Amino acid sequence: MPKISNKGLQMPESPIRKLVPFAEAAVKKGKKIYQLNIGQPDIKTPEKALDAIRNHSIEVLSYSHSAGFESYRNKLAGYYKNTGLPVEPKDIIITTGGSEALLFAMGGITDPGDEVIIPEPFYANYNGFATASGVSIKPIQASIDTNFALPPIEEFEKLITDKTRAILICNPGNPTGYLYTKEEVKKLADLALKHDLFIVSDEVYREFAYEGAEHHSIMSLPELAENAIMVDSVSKRYSMCGARIGCLVSKNEEVMKTAMKFAQARLSPPTFAQIASEAALDTPQSYFDEVIEEYTLRRNILVEGLEKIEGVKVATPRGAFYCIAELPVEDADDFAQWLLEDFDDQGETVMVAPAAGFYSTPDTGKNQVRIAYVLKKEDLSRSIEILEKALQKYNN
Amino acid sequence: MPKISNKGLQMPESPIRKLVPFAEAAVKKGKKIYQLNIGQPDIKTPEKALDAIRNHSIEVLSYSHSAGFESYRNKLAGYYKNTGLPVEPKDIIITTGGSEALLFAMGGITDPGDEVIIPEPFYANYNGFATASGVSIKPIQASIDTNFALPPIEEFEKLITDKTRAILICNPGNPTGYLYTKEEVKKLADLALKHDLFIVSDEVYREFAYEGAEHHSIMSLPELAENAIMVDSVSKRYSMCGARIGCLVSKNEEVMKTAMKFAQARLSPPTFAQIASEAALDTPQSYFDEVIEEYTLRRNILVEGLEKIEGVKVATPRGAFYCIAELPVEDADDFAQWLLEDFDDQGETVMVAPAAGFYSTPDTGKNQVRIAYVLKKEDLSRSIEILEKALQKYNN
Ligand SMILES: Cc1ncc(COP(=O)(O)O)c(C=O)c1O
Ligand SMILES: Cc1ncc(COP(=O)(O)O)c(C=O)c1O
Repeated sequence: MPKISNKGLQMPESPIRKLVPFAEAAVKKGKKIYQLNIGQPDIKTPEKALDAIRNHSIEVLSYSHSAGFESYRNKLAGYYKNTGLPVEPKDIIITTGGSEALLFAMGGITDPGDEVIIPEPFYANYNGFATASGVSIKPIQASIDTNFALPPIEEFEKLITDKTRAILICNPGNPTGYLYTKEEVKKLADLALKHDLFIVSDEVYREFAYEGAEHHSIMSLPELAENAIMVDSVSKRYSMCGARIGCLVSKNEEVMKTAMKFAQARLSPPTFAQIASEAALDTPQSYFDEVIEEYTLRRNILVEGLEKIEGVKVATPRGAFYCIAELPVEDADDFAQWLLEDFDDQGETVMVAPAAGFYSTPDTGKNQVRIAYVLKKEDLSRSIEILEKALQKYNN
Repeated sequence: MPKISNKGLQMPESPIRKLVPFAEAAVKKGKKIYQLNIGQPDIKTPEKALDAIRNHSIEVLSYSHSAGFESYRNKLAGYYKNTGLPVEPKDIIITTGGSEALLFAMGGITDPGDEVIIPEPFYANYNGFATASGVSIKPIQASIDTNFALPPIEEFEKLITDKTRAILICNPGNPTGYLYTKEEVKKLADLALKHDLFIVSDEVYREFAYEGAEHHSIMSLPELAENAIMVDSVSKRYSMCGARIGCLVSKNEEVMKTAMKFAQARLSPPTFAQIASEAALDTPQSYFDEVIEEYTLRRNILVEGLEKIEGVKVATPRGAFYCIAELPVEDADDFAQWLLEDFDDQGETVMVAPAAGFYSTPDTGKNQVRIAYVLKKEDLSRSIEILEKALQKYNN
């Protein structure tokens, strides 16, 4: 029998999906599960986007330009301009989700054996894209005690070798909910300039900043123009995860030229989804105001609820819609599985994502879980109640 | 300034797009161009597919399963069963175009430095996917004199080393239009079994076989179950290139498990496009009959027309919608550019794809072009007329 690749063997499984078979078994047994484990919002997709699809007048569904529709890129550049970022249409390649933008970024700036530094815990699929590109991730640990703020710059410098090509950050962070301050972004920029590194900034949650906090994009620093690569997506912004539209943004012409070669090889991003995404740009501000208000309430319910449970430590998120909580258990993996297999409170249980899968350093974050606050308020409150009861029972 | 990757530098540009700036300039000057250079059919997308999109009732456009909708996979397995192939839903992963299936296949079965043997000329984007995966392509030349039939098996054996992981074929072929015979497929299978290699068979044109010829899928050989990987797509079958839906098919569980890890990292294929693709499976046979009839007529016009031009040699295609023609010129690249820049007949010209870009061996196929017969009959006839006049003028 022919063999699959080492790369394929090394490809990590998504830590979010590992528990799925246990969840399916639980559902079969009639248990109700509150899903706190995935970042799939329940928020409605803007009507404008859905209507644009309903009203399409396509007769021949043809390939679009490999960089995406020109009309969409123009309008999207306008969106960035409105948020104060100097992005031109030529700085944008429309991709199949932020996922593909990450793949193009990694592929364009690294060769097999190169290294990328990433503060951990980080979005687990970075592992997959790195493995696919043959790149090794050098993690640098952020701490729950500082809400996962940027680790000291000296720690980054210690990790930089002649193989380091980039620093990858997620701002605001999945799974941490951390929103980098202006000073932190500036410090990273200085470091990148000093060592000639790229900063890849995953800003797919850029609209999700709470308490009036400002989001500081990597594209906001003129001096970093040649070093900055931004990854963005419509998935979370418009609750359009299934569209599969994102983009790669950079003012570095070599980067764009290279990414375009990757883009041309796969022909084009999905047409219907581009139509929806272009229309979504007309979504009124009131939609976002409501969404942010809703997430703020959910965040407050979650954080306050968790803080009341004995032995639980929470990192207060200021962006995105995740938070990391440390639980009074030794092995959150075991606990998460037990929640599905062996526990219920009146036929109900919760599903959480063990956080170890978001760390690259072995045996780290083993007592942490990531909780996504994508459920409505009543369900979140009930989930916290269940979690509290479960912890009591598990620890006896 | 930070550097992009060697891989990025090596990524080939699509040979189809190289002429685009010249075409744009010609259009600006008011020239009309008959585009024989791209595989974008003018055929209408089935109404059922377009209607399914119009009638969607989505409120939250969420991620689908990473392997695609279960309902779609079930129905798609039914389509393969109907064509006599023993494909189960579990053997299918829905991908973002056949393009992504090719990327998953390469990534899953090769490590950087590994080799894949491909008969040339071949679909140029295989170069891009190979470069992205760090794989080297070992070409094996097929000849226009045999209509690009499978080269002798001994030639393949000569190229096999301990780094060879797979043989990649395209059946029917882009750019050759060649449809492999049952014997040829069987010979490849025996070779793969003897040397423990995968056969990746790109069958995105599987429905396009002319003169009642039968298509022999790599999935039709039970003895090859562990070695066979099929790549398919809705792009050409339903003239739905912009949907971006394809699939990877294999009965090898390790391959599927590995490909699923790649699929999970990118979350899911596009939702709207899956809805359209599932609906497209209800397209009545009459649609295909008409399409095949239309392409047969176009093919006949093209081949007969080209054969009448002095000094032109044509490989008669029996599948897909491309053919390779050898022209009485030294450098088809130069000729193709001249057609756009310096020639017109009553304000009209044609755009062809120089075939050298479809060969991996340097300085090969320099006097050949690929012509896609995706235009309506009158336009094809006119294109041949223009080409004939152009050749006369170019050679004086
Ligand atoms: C941090 C982060 N980056 C990128 C993505 C990819 O999203 P998409 O491909 O849907 O744009 C996600 C999705 O959850 C994410 O959380
Ligand atoms: C031979 C071949 N394979 C694969 C593809 C990829 O098509 P898609 O990604 O649209 O399915 C094409 C497109 O032209 C092709 O010609």
